[in-house]
Amino acid sequence: MPQLLKVQNFFVSADGIAAGEDQSLERPFGNVDPTGLFSWAGATASWPTRTDPGGTRGLDDYMVRDFHHNIGAEIMGRNKFGPLRGPWRDEEWKGWWGEEPPFHTPVFVLTHHERPSFTLSDTTFHFLDADPATALERAKEAADGKDVRLGGGVTTIREFLDADLVDTLHVAVAPVKLGSGLKLWDTPEELTDRYHLDVVPSPSGVTHHLFWRK
Amino acid sequence: MPQLLKVQNFFVSADGIAAGEDQSLERPFGNVDPTGLFSWAGATASWPTRTDPGGTRGLDDYMVRDFHHNIGAEIMGRNKFGPLRGPWRDEEWKGWWGEEPPFHTPVFVLTHHERPSFTLSDTTFHFLDADPATALERAKEAADGKDVRLGGGVTTIREFLDADLVDTLHVAVAPVKLGSGLKLWDTPEELTDRYHLDVVPSPSGVTHHLFWRK
Repeated sequence: MPQLLKVQNFFVSADGIAAGEDQSLERPFGNVDPTGLFSWAGATASWPTRTDPGGTRGLDDYMVRDFHHNIGAEIMGRNKFGPLRGPWRDEEWKGWWGEEPPFHTPVFVLTHHERPSFTLSDTTFHFLDADPATALERAKEAADGKDVRLGGGVTTIREFLDADLVDTLHVAVAPVKLGSGLKLWDTPEELTDRYHLDVVPSPSGVTHHLFWRK
Repeated sequence: MPQLLKVQNFFVSADGIAAGEDQSLERPFGNVDPTGLFSWAGATASWPTRTDPGGTRGLDDYMVRDFHHNIGAEIMGRNKFGPLRGPWRDEEWKGWWGEEPPFHTPVFVLTHHERPSFTLSDTTFHFLDADPATALERAKEAADGKDVRLGGGVTTIREFLDADLVDTLHVAVAPVKLGSGLKLWDTPEELTDRYHLDVVPSPSGVTHHLFWRK
């Protein structure tokens, strides 16, 4: 089985925006309100941080619970890992996710400023100053035969798309417009020269876009 | 987490038929041609018996690859296990699936004629003369905290629905009519008094019906 590089559960607005500018510690998604992008996922039974029992078990739940399916490593950009820019002032910042990060695999953080690896619960974060192809090679080695998730953010996904390294994408398009911010695309059709596309509207209002290589 | 009883990847025609009458060794689906029910699944990358590389990785593939997600045991009716009726003439029949059955968990076969358990690869078949509630209790014990799949056939699913033991169902409705045979329903709306329902048309032509308890 070939090892795939997969984007999964990546959320954008109807106008293709995944995050705002000016990310900060208080606003991981910068100057946009991401609530409308996430609400469909938070309603599902499989959403990892839900606190009440219940939750939907329809189409959206299939999408959410597939997040870990056959995944052996994740690659993420530094802006997904944290709001800090430039050289690390210290090594206190360990990501947004507390003591139990939701990855449960090795995670490779792309950064021009490497620092020592560390482990929280069953997730180990490595820091890598590398081009996309080299980073993917390292992640595949660590994934032990399984697939690799490309976690975002949007700049990182665009870099890997430009390098033609992405095998499948699941992008959930929410029925809200954000106006300005970091864009994945102007329209999903930008990718259909290279990818098959299933457009799957969910009863929740979100539209799942499922791409796989031609 | 509660242990669920789940019907997954159960295939019916547009007129609700899952199999024909007169099942035999040569015709596991009796006197209907099941090709039209299965073709959408066989086109996916995750279909277990596909022999050529490739295959689709859109919506239908999510449905197919979810088959094993958090499943710790299966319950099936005797007619899914084999075409023989009445007392076993001998114990040579070991199912339709050869040396590598696609279950990889304990399987409980409901039958009025018990016989000794046996193991093929990582699947162990047990034979149980029990009502649905008792069978489910046994399967949950064996599932080690995971969910239980209700594998069919159609008569078995109807019995468990009548006993109100099913938590979720994924039924794939193919765009073919079979006319006569063993029916799951006249219409999916028969279940919507007890279940939420997402109706999800796939670009392949099949319509996925996803039910979960109200």
